[in-house]
This record gives sequence, C-alpha cells and structure tokens, in this order.
Amino acid sequence: MARALELARDGARQGEVPIGAVVLKDGEILAEAHNAPRELTDPTAHAEILALRRAAEKLGSERLEGCELWVTLEPCAMCAGAIAHARIARLYYAAPDPKGGAVEHGARVFEQKQCLHRPEVYSGMGESQAGELLRQFFAARR
Amino acid sequence: MARALELARDGARQGEVPIGAVVLKDGEILAEAHNAPRELTDPTAHAEILALRRAAEKLGSERLEGCELWVTLEPCAMCAGAIAHARIARLYYAAPDPKGGAVEHGARVFEQKQCLHRPEVYSGMGESQAGELLRQFFAARR
Repeated sequence: MARALELARDGARQGEVPIGAVVLKDGEILAEAHNAPRELTDPTAHAEILALRRAAEKLGSERLEGCELWVTLEPCAMCAGAIAHARIARLYYAAPDPKGGAVEHGARVFEQKQCLHRPEVYSGMGESQAGELLRQFFAARR
Repeated sequence: MARALELARDGARQGEVPIGAVVLKDGEILAEAHNAPRELTDPTAHAEILALRRAAEKLGSERLEGCELWVTLEPCAMCAGAIAHARIARLYYAAPDPKGGAVEHGARVFEQKQCLHRPEVYSGMGESQAGELLRQFFAARR
C-alpha cells in the first residue's frame, strides 16, 4: 500500500485525483498506475483499470488469476467490474468511498449474482494517508 | 444499431463474444468497436470501453457530452460505470442481459446515488438479432 500511496502522490503532482494502484503476483509488483483520465484523455483511465491492463499485457493473459490489486480508494462500479473480469484473487483498498464506491457502497458489484468472480476483499490499511491525500487535493482546488 | 450488430458479427468471426458498440455525435459515427479482450489481452476490452476510449481520443476530451452510445447488449457494471464517467447523454442497448447486465439488472449502476451522471436509457431495438448472434456463438462453442 505504501507504493500505491506514492503513486497517488505522483498523480496529484500532475493534477490528477490522487489514487494509486498496484498489481502484485507472488509478492512482486507486476504493474502499477495512478489515476490519469486527463493526461490520457480517457474516461476509463482510473488507476485500477490502467494497472489491470498493464498487468494483463505483461502476463500475456486477460485473466490475472492469483494476482492481488492494492488501491488507495474503494473502487467505483467500473473498476469493481474490471476487477471481477480480470479474476483478481484479492483486493486491498485503503479508504472507503461513500460518494463513489461500489464495493461496500451503492452498486455493491461483488455482491450481485451477475458478478461472475468475487475477489477476497480487505480494507483499511493506509486509510488515513489515502483520505488525507484526497482532502488536501480537493481543498487546494477550491 | 445496424452498425453495432455488424461489429458484433465481426467480433464473432474473430472468436470474441459478439457484442458491438458505436458512439455517435450529432448523428455521425465518432468511434466503434467490437468486444476484443482476447485479441487485445485486456480484461477491460469490452466493446463499450473500446468505443468510449476511441471517441474520447478523437474528441480530445475525456467527457463525451452530447454523445450517444449504441450497443448490442445491456452493459455490465464496468461498462455502465464507464458510460457514467464519460458523460454519455443517451444509451441505447438491444438485448437485456439478466446474467451480466448492470443497468436493469443486479448492480443497477445508474440508479445508485454514487452514480454522478445518468444517461437517458432506451432498449429493445435490434433485441432479437443481438440475442440470436449470442445464442449462435455460444451454441457453436458447446
């Protein structure tokens, strides 16, 4: 999670909402990303989506079986859906996101019978740092 | 929708689940795609995601305000989330998808308060053709 928080900080320096994500396989970093919809002019370029796409490219497989995704904020519906499609084994997120989250809030994507793969989900590690980064970012823009 | 169905057929010829999507702006096709997670080794490469990304690149904006998305199947949670992030004005889909859909089924992404943009949604045009393409595809693989 320390690396995901570092990536979130990198994103903020580039004017992106500070969210970072890392895909691990067998304890090694396979791919990483920060939020970059502005930089990439891509509405789907959330940290999770970019990290999943890079990991799949690196593994040569659209399924990331046995991989973990570490991300600084509770995934939205788009990202939770992508995590299920990618067959991520374990999801770790730092801060809950009542305004946009879709794991423990709102759409609760993994709890639907339409969800064909459910990762194990762990949350809370690094929550205060992740939340503080977001608060600082939005406070500075007001 | 005729063009989206054609794209779905192109996808099937390449061994991809036959789903096609088209983004329109002012009545003109801005971007199009068929499902391609295998071809692209990308778990996020659903027709909708690819069409949205191509449209954003073409417009030079991560927001596709005033654009329409036409797709042959009810979007999943990932794609519905992406449609909201992209600020698509109107969504047209042919066939409902009780097994994986997240618009009128399961996660019902656009009905959640965490969803920051709700497109107008229309469904049913081309439903029988879209459904038949999927049935033939899966029957041939059994």
